[in-house]
Amino acid sequence: MTSHRLDAIAKALGLEAVGRTDIALSGVAEPQDCPADWLALAMKPDYAEGLAQGQARAAILWDGADWQGYGLEGAILAPRPRFALSGLSAMMDPGAGYAPGISEMTSIDPSAEIGADVSIGAFAVIGAGAKIGAGTVIGPQAFVGAETVIGEGGLIHAGARIGARCTLRDRVILQPGAVIGGDGFSFVTPEASGAEKARESLGGEAAAEGQPWARIHSLGGVTLGDDVEVGANTTIDRGTVRDTRIGRGTKIDSLVQVGHNVVVGEHSLLCGLVGIGGSTEIGSFVVLGGKTGVSDNLRIGDNVICGGATVVLSSIPKGRVVLGYPAVKMDQQIEIFKAMRRLPRLAREVAALRKAVSKPAASE
Amino acid sequence: MTSHRLDAIAKALGLEAVGRTDIALSGVAEPQDCPADWLALAMKPDYAEGLAQGQARAAILWDGADWQGYGLEGAILAPRPRFALSGLSAMMDPGAGYAPGISEMTSIDPSAEIGADVSIGAFAVIGAGAKIGAGTVIGPQAFVGAETVIGEGGLIHAGARIGARCTLRDRVILQPGAVIGGDGFSFVTPEASGAEKARESLGGEAAAEGQPWARIHSLGGVTLGDDVEVGANTTIDRGTVRDTRIGRGTKIDSLVQVGHNVVVGEHSLLCGLVGIGGSTEIGSFVVLGGKTGVSDNLRIGDNVICGGATVVLSSIPKGRVVLGYPAVKMDQQIEIFKAMRRLPRLAREVAALRKAVSKPAASE
Amino acid sequence: MTSHRLDAIAKALGLEAVGRTDIALSGVAEPQDCPADWLALAMKPDYAEGLAQGQARAAILWDGADWQGYGLEGAILAPRPRFALSGLSAMMDPGAGYAPGISEMTSIDPSAEIGADVSIGAFAVIGAGAKIGAGTVIGPQAFVGAETVIGEGGLIHAGARIGARCTLRDRVILQPGAVIGGDGFSFVTPEASGAEKARESLGGEAAAEGQPWARIHSLGGVTLGDDVEVGANTTIDRGTVRDTRIGRGTKIDSLVQVGHNVVVGEHSLLCGLVGIGGSTEIGSFVVLGGKTGVSDNLRIGDNVICGGATVVLSSIPKGRVVLGYPAVKMDQQIEIFKAMRRLPRLAREVAALRKAVSKPAASE
Repeated sequence: MTSHRLDAIAKALGLEAVGRTDIALSGVAEPQDCPADWLALAMKPDYAEGLAQGQARAAILWDGADWQGYGLEGAILAPRPRFALSGLSAMMDPGAGYAPGISEMTSIDPSAEIGADVSIGAFAVIGAGAKIGAGTVIGPQAFVGAETVIGEGGLIHAGARIGARCTLRDRVILQPGAVIGGDGFSFVTPEASGAEKARESLGGEAAAEGQPWARIHSLGGVTLGDDVEVGANTTIDRGTVRDTRIGRGTKIDSLVQVGHNVVVGEHSLLCGLVGIGGSTEIGSFVVLGGKTGVSDNLRIGDNVICGGATVVLSSIPKGRVVLGYPAVKMDQQIEIFKAMRRLPRLAREVAALRKAVSKPAASE
Repeated sequence: MTSHRLDAIAKALGLEAVGRTDIALSGVAEPQDCPADWLALAMKPDYAEGLAQGQARAAILWDGADWQGYGLEGAILAPRPRFALSGLSAMMDPGAGYAPGISEMTSIDPSAEIGADVSIGAFAVIGAGAKIGAGTVIGPQAFVGAETVIGEGGLIHAGARIGARCTLRDRVILQPGAVIGGDGFSFVTPEASGAEKARESLGGEAAAEGQPWARIHSLGGVTLGDDVEVGANTTIDRGTVRDTRIGRGTKIDSLVQVGHNVVVGEHSLLCGLVGIGGSTEIGSFVVLGGKTGVSDNLRIGDNVICGGATVVLSSIPKGRVVLGYPAVKMDQQIEIFKAMRRLPRLAREVAALRKAVSKPAASE
Repeated sequence: MTSHRLDAIAKALGLEAVGRTDIALSGVAEPQDCPADWLALAMKPDYAEGLAQGQARAAILWDGADWQGYGLEGAILAPRPRFALSGLSAMMDPGAGYAPGISEMTSIDPSAEIGADVSIGAFAVIGAGAKIGAGTVIGPQAFVGAETVIGEGGLIHAGARIGARCTLRDRVILQPGAVIGGDGFSFVTPEASGAEKARESLGGEAAAEGQPWARIHSLGGVTLGDDVEVGANTTIDRGTVRDTRIGRGTKIDSLVQVGHNVVVGEHSLLCGLVGIGGSTEIGSFVVLGGKTGVSDNLRIGDNVICGGATVVLSSIPKGRVVLGYPAVKMDQQIEIFKAMRRLPRLAREVAALRKAVSKPAASE
């Protein structure tokens, strides 16, 4: 890693350095593990405690921190240290380590259009008519399907796969093993199926008959907006007749499943193991906590937040914060969780009350 | 895309065209986005509203629809339009776009038997003694292990992987990144482990001791029946001594985990992020909604339907429709969900009742 | 498969054979399917019933079993038959079937150090400065990033991927498609985001504003201890500034997501579809049942057991056995589950009580 002076780091972050600003730093570390020539990340008073165990001479701390009191020679004070970490980590990132340029061991269809400064790793495959924008990195063993278009400055990690006829706009990042454009899970029976009837009757009717499933082919693709990031081994299915769409700036974690025809707005976060059923629409600035599941054909409004493992079985209006199975407003759900814990006692109390109330009558 | 006449499309679907039946159509689209020379999918009155915004001259609609009233020149009327979409989408499917034939950049063991009209994509690997049936497509970067047998007409998408000694019957589809035949998750401690004791005692006993885990190797394979489809990045583990088996016609969505020794019947649906524990048996015509989890060693009867995110901790008799954590009959669960929402109020009511009932006694 | 004499098998397992100990056996099978020259696995009286349907002449049974009564000619009696299966299955395992040696169709950076007796499959990629320990098998289409170090005796299955600067100690097994070292899911807004506020206020405050997300780059790697196994398509993210760490002997099933900075202790089990949020610490000898989710920044003590689909929203002290959403002690949770099932009835009883109690007052 290159080394940077403390004041240069501060400047790059739009912040100011204090104390000895010429210390040269060649990495970042947690305070307790920090070598003398690295920058310690002491974002909160709790973390700063570790400075005593480590060797750090300089740290980034919260605004107003008594950096000299922690024995430091220099410091960067940040009003929102976690936000500063974004720029700092970008500066210090050694990158994915893929060999630059276009490997000789690739399969690139002659009809594909490869932009300037594109690098393509070993054993990658680029299909007929695909277009790769300038500066995009296609990692080793990645797959880009026929007629798929990727914008500029993208990063398609090792083994990520994009099926035919998809669109990735600029600066999209796909983590290893992500699959964009698998077929939608869409099957239909000749007559109304048991699942359809159960849905209509809310489960009252058992499904007696059995029918084989006919496949509905996915004719649409997937469109990922500018600055979308997709996690490792996450899967985003193609649409039935139009594209499944992820809006610009939305970030998707690992092992997330996004069904066919889904539309996600801009700047939303989908955390690990989230699943979204077919044709559901998710707004902008939405946060779906880890393991959240959303049924098919629902509407989730802008700014909605789902806590961890929420199960969404009906649409949610914008701005609501929910939790639980099924999803209920978070403050109300926390009350329900508390009451559930006392439920066996409540049942015993009701039994006692019934006895108490019926006794006088019985004794009359 | 090739273009088809309206009457030819109708005939292929076993339906009849009305109005101007000679319109040439080169694609399908949702009504609001439909160009003049494409066929609009107006399966329901709601969707048909969009015809006014689009340019469609012809559409497929429900039986009895007033197609002329929507300003169309021709139409196909279908008694079950969604089923008609199956045949229609197959006709219109432009395919995966893989290069035909056998790429020169593959690793095919000389002892492998490759059937007629098989295509194999770049950087695919076919192991020793493997057999690939006629007409099967092995996508780029796919892996077929030693002694694995694949039937006719299969479609193994890019980067799907099948371990050694597995069997895929005819017309199996594996979406990208699917893994068939990873090892089962089967470990054992020298003495009874904490988890075993917790299971026996239903959790009353804490596990004090710790023991390392010994591996049970998976000697069995995986067998997928005719017409099975497996979603992107889904994993189906091999059996301990016999094969894990998926019955013909069963469709499995993306990111599903099927444990070792599991047996799934015919024509069942396993939706996204479903997990099935080792040695569990699932019947035929079963539907497991998205994110459903089924514990190990259970029996789920034919025609069972589990709603989204159901957690199945005990066996379910055939024909039952269930929901929730833990699984309860769906209509009953919906009552429970309603009652849970009112639970904090119920607790307050009980507290008030206790006060009211005890008061007379106290005032005596 | 090679054949083994019954007494040789017994000796290898540290057990004794009885009856005709010279029977040659060339496989293992479940009793009902067992051919005459294979060893039947009749671990429990239930399973032994199947011996009558199969052809087995020899079986492995529990201590004290009446093997002659089942018509067998020879037997191995094991005090803990499932543990014996570990050694037995290792003996009988035909292996992954990868071609030995280093394929000519690989991309191995000249600066990589490859140990003795390493095999590397077709289309595998080994990055600059990577080190592969003696006897390790790198499967076809696997990826080993720059400066990543793998110990001795490892088994990296087909298509498994390890990013740059990770460390795998000795005898690590990665199942197909596993991704070690994808970037952490770590994003920050310039100002406090809706999710942060919801967490602080427990959901009372709706998030009105929207802000784009800035990326925090992952500068750390992943360290997997000796004898760690990672399941198919599982993802373990790299740490922010230090490594995400999995302790020796810990086994991880398929489709598990382990977030950035997570630390897992030794000899723990993480079953299928488990998700662990960033910076959470999991102890040693912990068992997380299938589909368990653990929020970020929690502490799960040693020997904790979570039943299937548990949702852990707060830290758990060591030795506790829990279940449910949210996690509650397992025996207590089972009481809650029972009470929930009766909750609609309880609500009706309370309504009746309120009427009964208020009536006298009303009649006054």
